[in-house]
Amino acid sequence: MSYNLLKGKKGLIFGALNEHSIAWKVAERAVEEGAQIVLTNTAVSIRMGTIGELAEKTGSIVVPADATNVSDLENLIDKAMEHFGGKFDFILHSIGMSPNVRKGRTYDDLDYDFLAKTLDISAISFHKVIQVARKKDALNDWGSIVALTYIAAQRVLYGYNDMADAKALLESIARSFGYIYGREKKIRVNTVSQSPTPTTAGSGVLGLDDLMNFAERMSPLGNATADDCANYVITLFSDLTRKVTMQNLFHDGGFSSMGMSRRAMKIYEAGLGMKFDDVKSNPYPFGAPEGETKR
Amino acid sequence: MSYNLLKGKKGLIFGALNEHSIAWKVAERAVEEGAQIVLTNTAVSIRMGTIGELAEKTGSIVVPADATNVSDLENLIDKAMEHFGGKFDFILHSIGMSPNVRKGRTYDDLDYDFLAKTLDISAISFHKVIQVARKKDALNDWGSIVALTYIAAQRVLYGYNDMADAKALLESIARSFGYIYGREKKIRVNTVSQSPTPTTAGSGVLGLDDLMNFAERMSPLGNATADDCANYVITLFSDLTRKVTMQNLFHDGGFSSMGMSRRAMKIYEAGLGMKFDDVKSNPYPFGAPEGETKR
Amino acid sequence: MSYNLLKGKKGLIFGALNEHSIAWKVAERAVEEGAQIVLTNTAVSIRMGTIGELAEKTGSIVVPADATNVSDLENLIDKAMEHFGGKFDFILHSIGMSPNVRKGRTYDDLDYDFLAKTLDISAISFHKVIQVARKKDALNDWGSIVALTYIAAQRVLYGYNDMADAKALLESIARSFGYIYGREKKIRVNTVSQSPTPTTAGSGVLGLDDLMNFAERMSPLGNATADDCANYVITLFSDLTRKVTMQNLFHDGGFSSMGMSRRAMKIYEAGLGMKFDDVKSNPYPFGAPEGETKR
Amino acid sequence: MSYNLLKGKKGLIFGALNEHSIAWKVAERAVEEGAQIVLTNTAVSIRMGTIGELAEKTGSIVVPADATNVSDLENLIDKAMEHFGGKFDFILHSIGMSPNVRKGRTYDDLDYDFLAKTLDISAISFHKVIQVARKKDALNDWGSIVALTYIAAQRVLYGYNDMADAKALLESIARSFGYIYGREKKIRVNTVSQSPTPTTAGSGVLGLDDLMNFAERMSPLGNATADDCANYVITLFSDLTRKVTMQNLFHDGGFSSMGMSRRAMKIYEAGLGMKFDDVKSNPYPFGAPEGETKR
Repeated sequence: MSYNLLKGKKGLIFGALNEHSIAWKVAERAVEEGAQIVLTNTAVSIRMGTIGELAEKTGSIVVPADATNVSDLENLIDKAMEHFGGKFDFILHSIGMSPNVRKGRTYDDLDYDFLAKTLDISAISFHKVIQVARKKDALNDWGSIVALTYIAAQRVLYGYNDMADAKALLESIARSFGYIYGREKKIRVNTVSQSPTPTTAGSGVLGLDDLMNFAERMSPLGNATADDCANYVITLFSDLTRKVTMQNLFHDGGFSSMGMSRRAMKIYEAGLGMKFDDVKSNPYPFGAPEGETKR
Repeated sequence: MSYNLLKGKKGLIFGALNEHSIAWKVAERAVEEGAQIVLTNTAVSIRMGTIGELAEKTGSIVVPADATNVSDLENLIDKAMEHFGGKFDFILHSIGMSPNVRKGRTYDDLDYDFLAKTLDISAISFHKVIQVARKKDALNDWGSIVALTYIAAQRVLYGYNDMADAKALLESIARSFGYIYGREKKIRVNTVSQSPTPTTAGSGVLGLDDLMNFAERMSPLGNATADDCANYVITLFSDLTRKVTMQNLFHDGGFSSMGMSRRAMKIYEAGLGMKFDDVKSNPYPFGAPEGETKR
Repeated sequence: MSYNLLKGKKGLIFGALNEHSIAWKVAERAVEEGAQIVLTNTAVSIRMGTIGELAEKTGSIVVPADATNVSDLENLIDKAMEHFGGKFDFILHSIGMSPNVRKGRTYDDLDYDFLAKTLDISAISFHKVIQVARKKDALNDWGSIVALTYIAAQRVLYGYNDMADAKALLESIARSFGYIYGREKKIRVNTVSQSPTPTTAGSGVLGLDDLMNFAERMSPLGNATADDCANYVITLFSDLTRKVTMQNLFHDGGFSSMGMSRRAMKIYEAGLGMKFDDVKSNPYPFGAPEGETKR
Repeated sequence: MSYNLLKGKKGLIFGALNEHSIAWKVAERAVEEGAQIVLTNTAVSIRMGTIGELAEKTGSIVVPADATNVSDLENLIDKAMEHFGGKFDFILHSIGMSPNVRKGRTYDDLDYDFLAKTLDISAISFHKVIQVARKKDALNDWGSIVALTYIAAQRVLYGYNDMADAKALLESIARSFGYIYGREKKIRVNTVSQSPTPTTAGSGVLGLDDLMNFAERMSPLGNATADDCANYVITLFSDLTRKVTMQNLFHDGGFSSMGMSRRAMKIYEAGLGMKFDDVKSNPYPFGAPEGETKR
């Protein structure tokens, strides 16, 4: 399926690790829709993942860059502009990581150096990307910038830890820079708040399955998949959404507007019937301390 | 416990049926805090409930009024001003009823005459009360008006039906009139979005227990009770909150800012373990069709 | 420009009066994108406007219907299904009118029969359309329903009067029905909160120009036009946004996320410098009492 | 005026510089209402300001602490518990500073070391305070923690710069820790989103007067003052608001629920009439680059 929605457009995509990544799906769909792209990720992620395959498949190049490193980003933007022969049109930011989650530091026992890293990697990197792009005047007027986020920025989901704060910061950056880049160059900046998605980052995590099951049953349309997300992001890169900016857009099958669904309540009531208060809920649904094995 | 927070203040309280009513608790606490009050309810509710006891206990009078009827309201305001010997300071609106819920009409099969009644009783009555009070210049400057609402105005809770729409309308009326009454007379208008509360209206309803159990486990501080609510409303009637207006204030132990708590997830996971998909969830947690018996 | 985004889709469009109407633009774009459509409006609007031209241009038919009248809607849905030879895929609701605004009744002096009409025409009609469509099983799975709304549902804009409350009710109906129609048929229901737009309903209104000027200067991308809106709505009807539901989507050039822009502040500061407190601001920016002439 | 609302309560107050500080007013009111307090600020602020007078006036002690420094905070909590002879009941966080604002770095030219400091001082310090208090089990059950914030966390106000992002982060921390501290110790955590207030930090700033004028005219009750804020915060420390947690509470005379008021529009229209597009709006309303003089 292709509508040529992005015909003639060029874009830069952060965060494709392997075929489960949302960024991977967006890259594929963008090219299907007629775009040229440049891929980027950290050197480590490039080694660990299979981004080379994606580059081949999509006729694109991979430029390694640590998105927290301004000179890496400067080099990246230069390389992208070189590759495209000039300015480009869209950017996807799909980056997030919390050393506190990884190391099993709970929210009431955060390591503050780790917290600084969580924020730098997951949120401030977004500012850096945009600031560098703007200084280099890398984007065409009416370009579109999207970052992926999660509803934990608005509502506490136990175990999501300092990533929730990072997502709140990320969404604020989108608004703040959306104003400035919008008034100057008509470039829009939005975040897409996606259903929990079984990417490599997420899969294998203790308890995430159960949270996804809950979200699935709460959402009248079910959880949005990575493929769904790619389709949605394509519309945000297209010329059809030019006046949408500074928004946090829920792409979640309706989850964000639900208080309680009948489908989810059935499971909850079954649990109540069991009076299974001694059931062990996983304390780390979004990330197990290192050394713990996955189910 | 009394702080004399409302010393010298006078107010009008809608919606006390019996000792379980939030309005009843607010009336008691207002008087404890030094206020004089006037009570009102429909003639039917006055007969069905025990508001006479409350009047005696609080040294107040009861003026019957149908809050959807403008001439009833005019008479009520006149009587209240007569009783108080002049203007008064606060109003509590605690009124809600849906004939669609009562008659078991589901949201995809609403009776539109019933819907008009739901909106008139549960939301438009709030506008009528304020409009009549303002035309009669019944409130002192820096007065305070509060209506009780529920989070269903923002998020769908299955079975709450057209009451959700009524609450959304009610909250909008608070904003709209808050602007006008504020700029003119410094009168503030707010809504308090309360935890599900086992009042007479709520209790005995099929399935509400389970929803309250879920809310209790989602909320870090547990559900707010009617007594808690009365305390909170007292602060909103006091002089300490003079610059709070046009707000919807969640009074819910934290529920509104939760996506998933560990305590609730434990029950859900127990239910999942049972694979009890055939558990029957009550389709009418907020109101059974007439004729059905309660558990 | 056409992407064939709606190839093979069929839809029903309420509210096209003349070429300035947002609904008119949506109709044109939908057909450009490959859709078949059916147009509808009240008999009076059909006579007053030029919808016949649109029908001719788009190869569609016009079926008169009063959207507050259930039997009119039943006939409309029957006619549409007949015309399409079966089920269809999308609905646009672009209907709003306030007799209170028209007759110059201010918000603190509402006529309650008028208010009931405002709500019935501008909000409850949306429920009626969906309820009738669902009862007749008129929509294909994964269909899309959109209603147009305005930020007055969240924030008071003086003079918008009871239309603000109607829009809040409309947005709540979208959520409430979105849950039910979503879980059953995967049909999504959203509202688009559009910049102020100079349609026939809006143009010629005293003071609206100034409000639009303010919104234009507050919004980093400027106000969204009717053409912009049509493009956006097309994406919501397409298969690329299947998991977006129960959302209120701001399409406003960023206005909703602005507190103050430098461009707007410049004008405000110029006004301050003038100390022109005696400038007469139009008390009815969204609608003059009948008999007043436009500037 | 005293209601003895905080009789027997003890609390820790961050951020009183001089008599214009909101924290100063809160300290005074808390003591009037029967509380004992401990004051704290950085060594530099203690020297620059007049907190010693406040300590004397309120019979409290001052413990110097840099709120970004965990061992300072540990010492502070120890000293406070020593002073109080045990646990205490409330904390006020009124701390914010942006080196980027101070040095005139615009949002599209942020220094990232400065940004890290803005976030550390204005937001992460709040996490540190709570984490240290919790580790030392310093707060009584049903205690109350409040931080001051600003609507820039939700809507862009030009010139507020990276402080907007810091406030968004701060509000997220309140939610995240509110969950954990609530479920364990029934301690509530909220933020108060206050009108722009002419404190020492704010006063003398180029252009802030005009923004405050705009906010004043937009807000039906006018801007909330520091005194108003102190009264409101007292209610949040009292036992009457025990079930309010994880909320961002607007205390702003209604500003947050306004789209446009007639009073503000009059000034705007006067400015339009002047066609004074060449009026220079101050580019740094929230902070001038060093070396610039104030008007």
